[in-house]
Amino acid sequence: MKNIAKEILNKNISAAAKLMRYIEEEDIKAIDELKLLYLHQGNSYVIGITGLPGSGKSSLIDVLIDYFRQDKKTVGVIAIDPTSPFTGGSILGDRIRMQKHSNDNGVFIKSLPTRGWKGGISKVTSRMIAVMDAMGKDIIIVETAGVGQTEVEIKDLVHTTVVVLVGGLGDSIQIVKAGILEIADIFVINKADKINTQDLESDLNSLLSLDSGSGKSIKDKEWKPPVCITEAANNKGIGNLIDNIFLHEDYLKTTGKFDEYFKNKSINDLKEIISDYLTNLLFKELNNDDIYKKLLNDLNNNESDPYTVAEEILRQFLKK
Amino acid sequence: MKNIAKEILNKNISAAAKLMRYIEEEDIKAIDELKLLYLHQGNSYVIGITGLPGSGKSSLIDVLIDYFRQDKKTVGVIAIDPTSPFTGGSILGDRIRMQKHSNDNGVFIKSLPTRGWKGGISKVTSRMIAVMDAMGKDIIIVETAGVGQTEVEIKDLVHTTVVVLVGGLGDSIQIVKAGILEIADIFVINKADKINTQDLESDLNSLLSLDSGSGKSIKDKEWKPPVCITEAANNKGIGNLIDNIFLHEDYLKTTGKFDEYFKNKSINDLKEIISDYLTNLLFKELNNDDIYKKLLNDLNNNESDPYTVAEEILRQFLKK
Repeated sequence: MKNIAKEILNKNISAAAKLMRYIEEEDIKAIDELKLLYLHQGNSYVIGITGLPGSGKSSLIDVLIDYFRQDKKTVGVIAIDPTSPFTGGSILGDRIRMQKHSNDNGVFIKSLPTRGWKGGISKVTSRMIAVMDAMGKDIIIVETAGVGQTEVEIKDLVHTTVVVLVGGLGDSIQIVKAGILEIADIFVINKADKINTQDLESDLNSLLSLDSGSGKSIKDKEWKPPVCITEAANNKGIGNLIDNIFLHEDYLKTTGKFDEYFKNKSINDLKEIISDYLTNLLFKELNNDDIYKKLLNDLNNNESDPYTVAEEILRQFLKK
Repeated sequence: MKNIAKEILNKNISAAAKLMRYIEEEDIKAIDELKLLYLHQGNSYVIGITGLPGSGKSSLIDVLIDYFRQDKKTVGVIAIDPTSPFTGGSILGDRIRMQKHSNDNGVFIKSLPTRGWKGGISKVTSRMIAVMDAMGKDIIIVETAGVGQTEVEIKDLVHTTVVVLVGGLGDSIQIVKAGILEIADIFVINKADKINTQDLESDLNSLLSLDSGSGKSIKDKEWKPPVCITEAANNKGIGNLIDNIFLHEDYLKTTGKFDEYFKNKSINDLKEIISDYLTNLLFKELNNDDIYKKLLNDLNNNESDPYTVAEEILRQFLKK
């Protein structure tokens, strides 16, 4: 037991891939290994990058990986976007381009399906981050698709959230209005060579300068998200983006928020594990219980409701 | 107590809006009302409509509402897409167009933010469906944005899932490959007047005719999802779509799957309520517990891991 974990601490890639498979399959063999790895976390810098399909965020991640590798930093990528070339979901050209990193031992890419996770994607992503952290990755990038619940769940798992938009599209500003404003630490307006950025930039800046009254607040009142203009395809504006990522890291470290992050992450993991354990324990006991069968029957016949049944079950269970 | 619920059973719209606000705010006042409403559910037909921004799904929903209203059916809409005109998120013209339904007492529209839901969007959506069902809505339409986890969570809450695609975009077929194939009961290729549908149609049909080997399976092996071609903006192809929705309803009723739906939904609600109750109960006891404080401290100092702490807490708690 814990052999896989020990190999992961020695940066063994196939051991990491094996444990990640256990985690994905919710195989209980993962638990003993994770127990050891959790003692070694807290060293990676975790960056979330989110943007709609078409915003060029995969190309942006590609050039960021190049930058970090030139700086001798190791990188892990967790791709949760079904249209990402990292997940093999995108057009062939892109996918081949991304594969250049697959020959680099300092880059570990893991793609996760967006679907099928009991209790949401954040649970499995949190474990994947723990594995990459224990592997010694200096930087972990989590890529998400930019619409909906996933980004919001993921934002508590990353230090810095980069939201990638493109000018010209009405969609971008709508997404901002719909909640992305609140999760962004840094905005990127990409494809500046192809699409005019001015309107979106001034819209974003006026949204960001609203202190209150709009009913929206930015993620962290003391940090004003900068707006970076990039051309990922031409490697332009990347230095400025990197500078802003490091500025945000400095900000988190100076204010003590960097350490808070791992604290909150551990407590969230704990609460979710306790909740799962308790529920499994209860339903294991209930499955052969006659009172439970009767209650389920009442529920199915609209003779009772789930709240009342839950209260009765807990009364029975906690009596024992 | 239960006054709001009684008014909702009498189709009182402002009572329904009030309860929905309680549900959104996780106000415990909602529970007593829901207890009564749950006894009156099981009469609505619930249709999920999902598609990427730009697929024209809101226009499609608009014409579906017109059709159901002409048929004297009452309709509830739950919009979970931040870019939906129903949620006020879209461009002004669309929003105004949708507002025609706001003067119709037979149409009740509720928009939900995609973000900020503890334990995912499905929990709150399930409650909203229960309220609309108890209000006597014949049809409930749940609109989602077509990327990611939300659709998968929502699919178990609806009888019929309609996936709206547009031809020409590489994106559509990617989304299909990425998992939407598995949740669709009916495919719609919309905007047939503007974008050629043939390639996507033949791609879809060949994916659907693959019985196995691709690692993917359709939602229900006995039901082959039809592909409907529509022009929502010109009200074309809608009759055929409606026919297919009713064919699927017939199929569910003939095979007994229609009744199973409410059974599964109730049991899921029950499990989630039990899990929440148990966890809240536990953490209420723990908050002033010295052993818990010490364990949290160990966790924060990387001297223990969340699995071990969870096991110790449960050992303490279940001893009492």
